[in-house]
Amino acid sequence: MRIKELSSRSGVSVPTIKYYLREGLLPAGELVSKNQANYDGAHLRRLRLIRALVDVGGLTIAAVRDVLAAADAPGETVRKILYTAQESISGEPELPRDEAWAEAERKVADLVERRGWQVKPESKAWQTVVAVLASARQLEHGVWTHKLDVYADACERIATADLDYVAGIADVDAMLEGVVVGTVLGDTLVTALRRLAHQSESVRRLGDGTQDDDTQGDDTQGNDTHHEDAR
Amino acid sequence: MRIKELSSRSGVSVPTIKYYLREGLLPAGELVSKNQANYDGAHLRRLRLIRALVDVGGLTIAAVRDVLAAADAPGETVRKILYTAQESISGEPELPRDEAWAEAERKVADLVERRGWQVKPESKAWQTVVAVLASARQLEHGVWTHKLDVYADACERIATADLDYVAGIADVDAMLEGVVVGTVLGDTLVTALRRLAHQSESVRRLGDGTQDDDTQGDDTQGNDTHHEDAR
Repeated sequence: MRIKELSSRSGVSVPTIKYYLREGLLPAGELVSKNQANYDGAHLRRLRLIRALVDVGGLTIAAVRDVLAAADAPGETVRKILYTAQESISGEPELPRDEAWAEAERKVADLVERRGWQVKPESKAWQTVVAVLASARQLEHGVWTHKLDVYADACERIATADLDYVAGIADVDAMLEGVVVGTVLGDTLVTALRRLAHQSESVRRLGDGTQDDDTQGDDTQGNDTHHEDAR
Repeated sequence: MRIKELSSRSGVSVPTIKYYLREGLLPAGELVSKNQANYDGAHLRRLRLIRALVDVGGLTIAAVRDVLAAADAPGETVRKILYTAQESISGEPELPRDEAWAEAERKVADLVERRGWQVKPESKAWQTVVAVLASARQLEHGVWTHKLDVYADACERIATADLDYVAGIADVDAMLEGVVVGTVLGDTLVTALRRLAHQSESVRRLGDGTQDDDTQGDDTQGNDTHHEDAR
């Protein structure tokens, strides 16, 4: 198909497709003349993946490039693609290496040992957990992190489900895409579900606000009506 | 204290503090002369909170402003602050409202009913879950979302632990800060722990890579040595 059809089938504008081609996110089409190229189903699929990573996963174009480069590298193991995809979409926390940091490092090392996790302190994820603990303590909310094992336990269950899914995919390309989708969309999913669970739990404990505020609209007369709107 | 001491005690530069003052993130100090103001412990505490939200939580300055405005609004209920803090730091997913979207909306409504969650379809978190499901289906990874209840269950456990923590704080200001810390740092924590769990689970299933790649450094001779480095 020509670029116009690729655009209409993917919902991505022609200038944006050209931008992705220039940035190397999308492989070049097959040239049929000096100014025209043909694109196929693989281009359409890749384009949809890029849009999902940007629109739903919230990744920058630079992060998308890193993730796709990891997935495309020949001969990579699934484990390494998973690791690279994760690292490339993780920020590096910037905190002073003070005593709160040192204490947090010990706590994370203890957590990892307690749970028998086979992970390395160099990983950004490890350093990010340290940063969260150090930061919570500096803000005098260190007690919140006493729930660390509840978080770790929940994340183990999710990770097992994710790996079960990826392991069940026969086609290697689709498996790699599954790793990327699960990593990025999974971040978004877990964050959003945690918020819904927070919202529900706080309504359950504190009431739905119909007594003490009037900004919730008319759909909150009873607890049972909240989820009726979507149907 | 003067701005210089505030800077040295918080580790935030004077120009950055002035920027936060101009942007309204930090309340003005008490003027002691035309050009000098005094700051107190509340300023120091607020400054640390801002840095945590930016450096560890990854929030933009605009998002920090929204979150703090919610926490500072007089007479707000904890439930509403929690909701506002969450909404202000959630992106709005941009996806076409096609048939994949409509199917995803039904699935999320079913999930909410199945779990008895008291939440509303207008919330960004609800719409984000819909976007993830629609997107996964369009990418032909809809099967991954069959694990939705594993995610939801894990998120419920975390949310319960978070609310237990917040409910245990006696001081109202500290409680509101706890909501902000738990929401933002909790996002970062759950994402990072999920990655560590992925890394560990993939090493467990697929080996630690010492046989098939040489980029893992010299610290991966055995599975038991991975977490020794941090001590």
